[in-house]
Amino acid sequence: MKKFMDKDFLLETKTAKTLYFDHAAKMPIVDYHCHINPQEIAVDKKFKNITEAWLGGDHYKWRLIRSNGVDEEYITGKESSDREKFQKFAEALPRALGNPLYHWTHLELQRYFGVTKPLNGDTAEEIWEICNAKLQEPELSVQGIIKQSNVKFICTTDDPVSDLKWHKKLRAEGKCAAKVLPAIRPDKALHIAKTEWPAYMDQLGKVAGVTITDIASVRKALLQRLDYFAQYGCRAADHALEYVFCRKVSDAQVNVVIEKALAGKELTTEEIEMYETAVLLFLGEQYADRGWAMELHYSALRDTNTRMYKSLGPDTGFDCIAVASHNCGKGLADLLNALNMKNKLPKTIIFSLNPMDNAMIGSIIGSFQGPEVRGKIQQGAAWWFNDTKRGMLEQLDSIADLSVLGNILGMLTDSRSFLSYTRHEYYRRILCNWIGNKVENGEYPADMKMLGQLVEDICYNNAVRYFGFYKETKKA
Amino acid sequence: MKKFMDKDFLLETKTAKTLYFDHAAKMPIVDYHCHINPQEIAVDKKFKNITEAWLGGDHYKWRLIRSNGVDEEYITGKESSDREKFQKFAEALPRALGNPLYHWTHLELQRYFGVTKPLNGDTAEEIWEICNAKLQEPELSVQGIIKQSNVKFICTTDDPVSDLKWHKKLRAEGKCAAKVLPAIRPDKALHIAKTEWPAYMDQLGKVAGVTITDIASVRKALLQRLDYFAQYGCRAADHALEYVFCRKVSDAQVNVVIEKALAGKELTTEEIEMYETAVLLFLGEQYADRGWAMELHYSALRDTNTRMYKSLGPDTGFDCIAVASHNCGKGLADLLNALNMKNKLPKTIIFSLNPMDNAMIGSIIGSFQGPEVRGKIQQGAAWWFNDTKRGMLEQLDSIADLSVLGNILGMLTDSRSFLSYTRHEYYRRILCNWIGNKVENGEYPADMKMLGQLVEDICYNNAVRYFGFYKETKKA
Amino acid sequence: MKKFMDKDFLLETKTAKTLYFDHAAKMPIVDYHCHINPQEIAVDKKFKNITEAWLGGDHYKWRLIRSNGVDEEYITGKESSDREKFQKFAEALPRALGNPLYHWTHLELQRYFGVTKPLNGDTAEEIWEICNAKLQEPELSVQGIIKQSNVKFICTTDDPVSDLKWHKKLRAEGKCAAKVLPAIRPDKALHIAKTEWPAYMDQLGKVAGVTITDIASVRKALLQRLDYFAQYGCRAADHALEYVFCRKVSDAQVNVVIEKALAGKELTTEEIEMYETAVLLFLGEQYADRGWAMELHYSALRDTNTRMYKSLGPDTGFDCIAVASHNCGKGLADLLNALNMKNKLPKTIIFSLNPMDNAMIGSIIGSFQGPEVRGKIQQGAAWWFNDTKRGMLEQLDSIADLSVLGNILGMLTDSRSFLSYTRHEYYRRILCNWIGNKVENGEYPADMKMLGQLVEDICYNNAVRYFGFYKETKKA
Repeated sequence: MKKFMDKDFLLETKTAKTLYFDHAAKMPIVDYHCHINPQEIAVDKKFKNITEAWLGGDHYKWRLIRSNGVDEEYITGKESSDREKFQKFAEALPRALGNPLYHWTHLELQRYFGVTKPLNGDTAEEIWEICNAKLQEPELSVQGIIKQSNVKFICTTDDPVSDLKWHKKLRAEGKCAAKVLPAIRPDKALHIAKTEWPAYMDQLGKVAGVTITDIASVRKALLQRLDYFAQYGCRAADHALEYVFCRKVSDAQVNVVIEKALAGKELTTEEIEMYETAVLLFLGEQYADRGWAMELHYSALRDTNTRMYKSLGPDTGFDCIAVASHNCGKGLADLLNALNMKNKLPKTIIFSLNPMDNAMIGSIIGSFQGPEVRGKIQQGAAWWFNDTKRGMLEQLDSIADLSVLGNILGMLTDSRSFLSYTRHEYYRRILCNWIGNKVENGEYPADMKMLGQLVEDICYNNAVRYFGFYKETKKA
Repeated sequence: MKKFMDKDFLLETKTAKTLYFDHAAKMPIVDYHCHINPQEIAVDKKFKNITEAWLGGDHYKWRLIRSNGVDEEYITGKESSDREKFQKFAEALPRALGNPLYHWTHLELQRYFGVTKPLNGDTAEEIWEICNAKLQEPELSVQGIIKQSNVKFICTTDDPVSDLKWHKKLRAEGKCAAKVLPAIRPDKALHIAKTEWPAYMDQLGKVAGVTITDIASVRKALLQRLDYFAQYGCRAADHALEYVFCRKVSDAQVNVVIEKALAGKELTTEEIEMYETAVLLFLGEQYADRGWAMELHYSALRDTNTRMYKSLGPDTGFDCIAVASHNCGKGLADLLNALNMKNKLPKTIIFSLNPMDNAMIGSIIGSFQGPEVRGKIQQGAAWWFNDTKRGMLEQLDSIADLSVLGNILGMLTDSRSFLSYTRHEYYRRILCNWIGNKVENGEYPADMKMLGQLVEDICYNNAVRYFGFYKETKKA
Repeated sequence: MKKFMDKDFLLETKTAKTLYFDHAAKMPIVDYHCHINPQEIAVDKKFKNITEAWLGGDHYKWRLIRSNGVDEEYITGKESSDREKFQKFAEALPRALGNPLYHWTHLELQRYFGVTKPLNGDTAEEIWEICNAKLQEPELSVQGIIKQSNVKFICTTDDPVSDLKWHKKLRAEGKCAAKVLPAIRPDKALHIAKTEWPAYMDQLGKVAGVTITDIASVRKALLQRLDYFAQYGCRAADHALEYVFCRKVSDAQVNVVIEKALAGKELTTEEIEMYETAVLLFLGEQYADRGWAMELHYSALRDTNTRMYKSLGPDTGFDCIAVASHNCGKGLADLLNALNMKNKLPKTIIFSLNPMDNAMIGSIIGSFQGPEVRGKIQQGAAWWFNDTKRGMLEQLDSIADLSVLGNILGMLTDSRSFLSYTRHEYYRRILCNWIGNKVENGEYPADMKMLGQLVEDICYNNAVRYFGFYKETKKA
């Protein structure tokens, strides 16, 4: 029996260990997609206690505690103490055998807090004390965590209207060990059916110095923001879609839709898709011209629990995997094709929340590759509900079967927590073990030079090359 | 090489063996969903021979024999003898390497008949003789099987119009080792598009003392039956749906639909969904008030082979997995949300026949948990075509990734055969081995106290607590 | 650590090795579905060099090279040399760890060229020389390859208008070690929505001596071709569909659709499905009468990349997995049911490009079996994007869970290359290892006689029996 999460955690063979310790573990981190707050980096925040750091906004953990039959008061309530909340989490965790949170939590306890004891109801008090004391030390300030985690590049997720002032500050000070860059997420400009859309477009127009009345002015406003983001080293853009589609549409048609939406009228599905197609195609072409990567995150069904949404708002643990009644494969292929027809297909990274889409995505990316960069069209790492050992293995299996594994971009945290960088370690161990098993089973030559190169590429080099960060690095 | 299905069957590690023999094997059985006939328990039926016991109504076995190219006469025909039918099964079985029937059959042969020899065409005669002799002994009467299988609770599946007379008899006599309780399955009242619906509603009305003319009277009649079932300890309700949906609908609209249906007119899909939504929401609220669990079984495409349906009727082995062209995820989420909006979401157990729904269901249940009980919203055990070693492992993997494994309800037989209780053993071995692998691989601490508790909870305690059987037990 | 692809490649247990070497390896090959050119067999073609043999038309390899960021010029271009193209492939291959091409390539290098060194950029020159020299030897002419591969039956894929002249020649000469038979693929007659349809139907009519004006004349023309193909030993028919459907339709309705199509008018989806249903049902009945097998290949989304389609045409590596927005399960069941209602359901083999359909297909085939032959309705081997170690294992798992494994038809190459016969070896090793694992884990008795029989049946005997090749063999 292997010891619980010791240094050889998840590394079952000699080849896996060599690949991990001699190659993967040494590589820095590119965290090209996350939801951390640049302000907290810029002010080098310290956490009051482990409940703030862990349970302050992490809806993964909230769901887990809820699934253990705990009253919401002890999860997001205001009457319960931080210590009580921590206790409820500690009691739920050991019942969640097999859940990724079990491993994430203990990796974080081990790496950042030196705690090797399993967390449960009985050990909660002791671990609470240790963590809270540690959190006051400089290595556990936000920048301290980034530094000790060997993170070299961070792309935050930013709204087009952002003035990027915290990025400006970080750039000016040059103290953070990682290069912190904005990534643009124009969802609010895209989702025309949302009631907030007209007000948001007004705001976007003001920031961009454009009055938004039609598709031409939408493009002009977005263009101004893309140029602005470019000044701060933006290399990636992100889009959240419930499903992917592509409609043939003229500017005149889109203008009718915009007029309706600005007048507060309800739109048909067709109209929504027409507008969103027009904006996505415009943005995609822009990304292609700028060498930015386009990320597409789709298949999430959000805010399903109306009662909890009203009380807690979005991103609080009530989202689900959407199973498309639409043929998303065709939508995806059509979208990429429309851009490619104009020779303006940008580097694209596709994420579906539905793990059943793996094979379909793997087959689509292979139909749109190009010579600009190895693996121009990518399937992203296993996302959100799939960000588990099994989800990662299935993504590796699928992409290996259908594409060139050595060209993938590896891991990202997608996290709201600064303690999540250990997810890169988790991924790297799983990757090295997966490769090790193939080699030890005679399915790939034990050519450690080639294998070491593949591992280092997947862990770090591919992402640096793909996003063109080396240019950024040189400039800095 | 391990010996064929010996005492360590499916138990590959020391941890697995400890968990199975010291914990799982000792726990009694709750069989909370099955299709056995309460009359056969009440009269303590004995089987004429192994063909009656095994091949009398088991469409799993019929399919297997058909897939071996056997003429229907030797499966369900009247001219062939029981011995001939047994021979055809015995000849087909060894060709079905990997099929769950191979393991189920041999577990039953070992546990109930003391036969360890593999069944095939050559051994059929010998095994036929042994089984038939054994079937005449008292331990192999229906109540004998229940007793030796250590079954403590059985929920049968009962139509709302049932007078539950066999449950009454069982309750009065108090001889059966298991508590036998009814579970209500109001499918016939729900499925308004069936040609039998008007006649059935007439029957339901008569039993309930209500004339059914509108949704109010449908509710009144169902309410009467729920109250009646409650007297006999009903704690669960079951619903078979081809797909799940939820429509906004008023009573006035539903009344129009009911009127059309009672007049024998054809309904649109929208109308069918309006009526069924209204009835499901009413029932769901009632279950919530009563603390009953609502089971949803969906994604079955039934009676696909018209020629065989006409000759043999339903449930004879011609059903398939439906792949929804509807977005069942949204339908499911909307249904749970509609009940939750009124604070009337009952405990709910979701089963899809499409194994591709695992992740989607796991993500939905996590969005509707509540403090009433641990794991209030559940994914049920791998169902029907998925009731295989692999199907169980995939359900365990999925639920562990997305929920709190320690709170699940474990196994059920879903069977028409009394010899199927060994499926609980099969599940428990698979569960213990799955956990053992994680522990031996350093993925969970070797905390045998915690692990033993988790295993006992999953095998028995969770179900007793979830359905509230302890109350029933005390009352008895 | 096992050595890279040595003689025990993929065989992990003693049982697996015994099954493979004593049973699987000895069996001849039936390649019942492939895309090789009968002319190349008839003229006993020799390849100029390894680039022609490997990279001349293999879109699997083209996709791989494209995914490595290589310019199209070095893949299908006319300016780059064969040696340059080979180099690009050799450089891409080692980065594609886990891709089936890695194994296919090295199996072919080992078996046909005696090369055991892994192919990469550094070894490309040496391997280029060895392969090209070998290709000039008689064992590596097309018929040489067929002979040394122990292929006994080959079904090519032929258009109904074909005069089958190369089949005629092969038959007349009787020199090829394998029986080469045509298989009919009436896709062009079926796909009425294609712009080429009217011209094709004109051609078909001329070949068949029928003027095509309505469904009766379509049937007459096809009947003539079926009779013609029958003379050359045709035993199978193949159909490529984006999705499967079945509509109720009268001849009068279909005639209206045909008239529209012949007049070059655009058809609705409903009209297309009406015509195609009528033709498929007619053909299915014919196959039933003739004892031919009907193959259905569906869920492919073809030619997604318009720019590349315009430059390279179809079948050049730009096809994807379609995820149906239609309920293909119901469509499939309805189609089989419609034929079965008339007692005219032929032997049918179903292939979906979407691996998520495995369970659904497994459940459907079990609903339509018949006594004509063991496993009358089959799921085909893992197809195209699924033709990987993992895809094969998933197909074996699924079919074992849901059907009778011992009755399956085993492997086919589905290939455009004569060097692909090693895919049968690849499949057989995976099959034997999969069985071996079950046996060594105590899940099936170590009854080597029964197991050897099952393996030999799956590798060869089942296909010979299923297609009725023994009759053909006797006649010859």
